Amino acid sequence: MTTTVSYHQQFFLSSYGIKLQQHSHKKKLISFITCCSSTQSNPVVRPELSIRAGTKLIPHPKKAGKGGEDAFFVSSYNGGVIAVADGVSGWAEKDVDPAQFSRELMRRASSLVEDEEVNYDPRVLVRKAHAATASTGSATVIISMLDENGILKVANVGDCGLRVIRKGQIVFSTFPQEHYFDCPYQLSSEAVTQTYLDATVTSVDIVKGDIIVMGSDGLFDNVFDHEIISTIANHKDVVETAKVLGDLAYKHSVDFYYDSPYSIEARTRGFDVPWWKKVLGQKLTGGKMDDITVIVGEVVCS
Amino acid sequence: MTTTVSYHQQFFLSSYGIKLQQHSHKKKLISFITCCSSTQSNPVVRPELSIRAGTKLIPHPKKAGKGGEDAFFVSSYNGGVIAVADGVSGWAEKDVDPAQFSRELMRRASSLVEDEEVNYDPRVLVRKAHAATASTGSATVIISMLDENGILKVANVGDCGLRVIRKGQIVFSTFPQEHYFDCPYQLSSEAVTQTYLDATVTSVDIVKGDIIVMGSDGLFDNVFDHEIISTIANHKDVVETAKVLGDLAYKHSVDFYYDSPYSIEARTRGFDVPWWKKVLGQKLTGGKMDDITVIVGEVVCS
Repeated sequence: MTTTVSYHQQFFLSSYGIKLQQHSHKKKLISFITCCSSTQSNPVVRPELSIRAGTKLIPHPKKAGKGGEDAFFVSSYNGGVIAVADGVSGWAEKDVDPAQFSRELMRRASSLVEDEEVNYDPRVLVRKAHAATASTGSATVIISMLDENGILKVANVGDCGLRVIRKGQIVFSTFPQEHYFDCPYQLSSEAVTQTYLDATVTSVDIVKGDIIVMGSDGLFDNVFDHEIISTIANHKDVVETAKVLGDLAYKHSVDFYYDSPYSIEARTRGFDVPWWKKVLGQKLTGGKMDDITVIVGEVVCS
Repeated sequence: MTTTVSYHQQFFLSSYGIKLQQHSHKKKLISFITCCSSTQSNPVVRPELSIRAGTKLIPHPKKAGKGGEDAFFVSSYNGGVIAVADGVSGWAEKDVDPAQFSRELMRRASSLVEDEEVNYDPRVLVRKAHAATASTGSATVIISMLDENGILKVANVGDCGLRVIRKGQIVFSTFPQEHYFDCPYQLSSEAVTQTYLDATVTSVDIVKGDIIVMGSDGLFDNVFDHEIISTIANHKDVVETAKVLGDLAYKHSVDFYYDSPYSIEARTRGFDVPWWKKVLGQKLTGGKMDDITVIVGEVVCS
């Protein structure tokens, strides 16, 4: 991991034409035998792997003055630890700064990474970091840890996300957890919410060259997976890739007419323009203006 | 696991209306505090878990006489082992029955489940089963194993798939690996193809009540994830759920006008009707007629 960025380091925006014939589908063989060779990498006898990371945080324009409500950290401990927390903005209505909780959660988690009891288990890290917080508020959180065997372990509460891209294809993805639309699972200073026990805990065997993309929902609500894949294909440097993905998410987030992952999801859930607008061919569109955190990690041999 | 079905047991078909306002998106808090309670299940101190499985295999209608080219097995070993293989149909052009390889691969894997060297590692099981085959042919394959800690380990080569659904939401999914459209990664009797080293190896912490849906691409190319979720919500019995999902996949597969996951993917990859049909408002549609294997597993306390 080449960059270690503390939770409070914030980046501001400156910076064949036929109907399908039922019997025509055969899994390809002939061209396959002639074209395709086996992968020679060996994920079993593993080299020591680590993550070279680039980061970008673009606060919601109306929150830019105080740096937004997302927080994150990147640590070089072991193979690498990456974490993102997204403060629940509803707390502002109670005169509580939503950034306090997410930032403290990341600060606590960052300081606990090497705790023996954590033992490379991101769910235990979520538990201990949550227990250590004193701020009022709540946040979604995702923590991923690369262990000595090249296994990336992920604990996720809410709608932050992670993708692993290998040879231009997604091989692993987290899924958002929510109670209903725009109400994600979240860790809170309140007693009656989620705990580390609600974290979805998953893992994936990592190989050299894998690209890990982590972020808050400000990324994944505004940028499609195929855009993430093509951006990765077109940029080699992780710092540059994180910047380009962040800028793309921002561009879409402020575009009223962009048919974003968020607007598609909203329509799927039954939200749309009034019927008389539908008659005129209009539909609910737009990006989701939000804090945007992007972390791009390239898996390299240590 | 209540049913143990050998690889050769085959089932035949008889049997608000506003444009998104950029500043209106706040992660919900107030209703959250009043509505949402924490999950009380404890996935850390785990009960012994196992899988209660229902299965359904519907061969391609033109291959029904010989049972199609999919094969699968369900084993009650440890917490449960489920595997699906899909023979690559292109071998028929070489006068090789594509079913031979997939069936032998499943037979070998089934007999090796308790092999000490496998040690609950589905990738090792893929390696040993592949090495033991003598048939000519190739197949995609997915093997999942539930271990004593409640962790479902998955090794996947190609475009079979697996979903884990928890409380009506997908928490885990595999992703298809392919060289290009309709040419998936595959294990083969030929030397220059994929090996166990190419398997994507992932895992997810399982809790009681999780539903595991596994299948060949004949399921996932014809049935959307949201249809899988709603089907699960509407059926309690896994045998019935597998049947309903299989029948739904079959219904869509033979519908020239259904806009299936397969036809959407085809259009995304640049396949479509000729321009003059597009002018008339037509587009490439249709399900994908294929062998359909569906295995639905409910995670229960042993």
